[in-house]
Amino acid sequence: MSESDDIRELLERRAAALRAGDAERLVADYLPDVVAFTLAPPLAHTAPEVLDPEAKRAWLASFDSAVDFEVRDLRISVDGDLAFCHSLNRMSAVPRGRQEPFTLWYRSTVCLRRVDGVWRVAHEHDSTPFHMDGSFSAALDLTP
Amino acid sequence: MSESDDIRELLERRAAALRAGDAERLVADYLPDVVAFTLAPPLAHTAPEVLDPEAKRAWLASFDSAVDFEVRDLRISVDGDLAFCHSLNRMSAVPRGRQEPFTLWYRSTVCLRRVDGVWRVAHEHDSTPFHMDGSFSAALDLTP
Repeated sequence: MSESDDIRELLERRAAALRAGDAERLVADYLPDVVAFTLAPPLAHTAPEVLDPEAKRAWLASFDSAVDFEVRDLRISVDGDLAFCHSLNRMSAVPRGRQEPFTLWYRSTVCLRRVDGVWRVAHEHDSTPFHMDGSFSAALDLTP
Repeated sequence: MSESDDIRELLERRAAALRAGDAERLVADYLPDVVAFTLAPPLAHTAPEVLDPEAKRAWLASFDSAVDFEVRDLRISVDGDLAFCHSLNRMSAVPRGRQEPFTLWYRSTVCLRRVDGVWRVAHEHDSTPFHMDGSFSAALDLTP
């Protein structure tokens, strides 16, 4: 199995954890010094917050449905003990108290380091662009 | 000189090019297969658009001042022929026709590959988060 397959498996395991609402699994791959740039403020998230499954659990509990999740245009680069990946991801879920699911396409970059033979997430960057039409609203309506 | 110093130098050269308004220099480090996730839509930018200095020139021409640029919390990881970096960046400039500069802090991830002994940019991801208060406005008011 190539190293690229190892990374692909890790990403698929993380996608499965998101679909299953498994908060522990979602934080298990992070390195202690992880820096995460997420969809929500502040600019950067670090330990202990990022490593705490409670925050993920609270976020998952804000939906009345399971999270549907799709990854497109994934590209993986690996050399030595470093890897980086980027993709366009779709997330759909029904917010608590609503009838209809929202659907959001966003950009995702995941950077990994192999530590003691195990690939771990060192950095994660999820985002949407924003409209430059003077509204400065997040561009939540884009599709690949 | 360590490889991390090589990367730091490349990033500093790019910062200097931005401050100097040097559009050619800004696109010179990109690999032909670069995928850029930028502050503005669409979700992803690829060649030939990203490699065209004309687009950068038009963007730089939308300011009445030079671009002031600062990089904070830069972390660089290098192994073999891969590297990834992330930082919080501040950009300030006076939009054309305005009196006052705007200032924007955003997150930046730069992923590099060494090709024929030269470090090149394979992937770039710049973004702001957005407010989850129902306004869905880009969070342009954040500071590190």
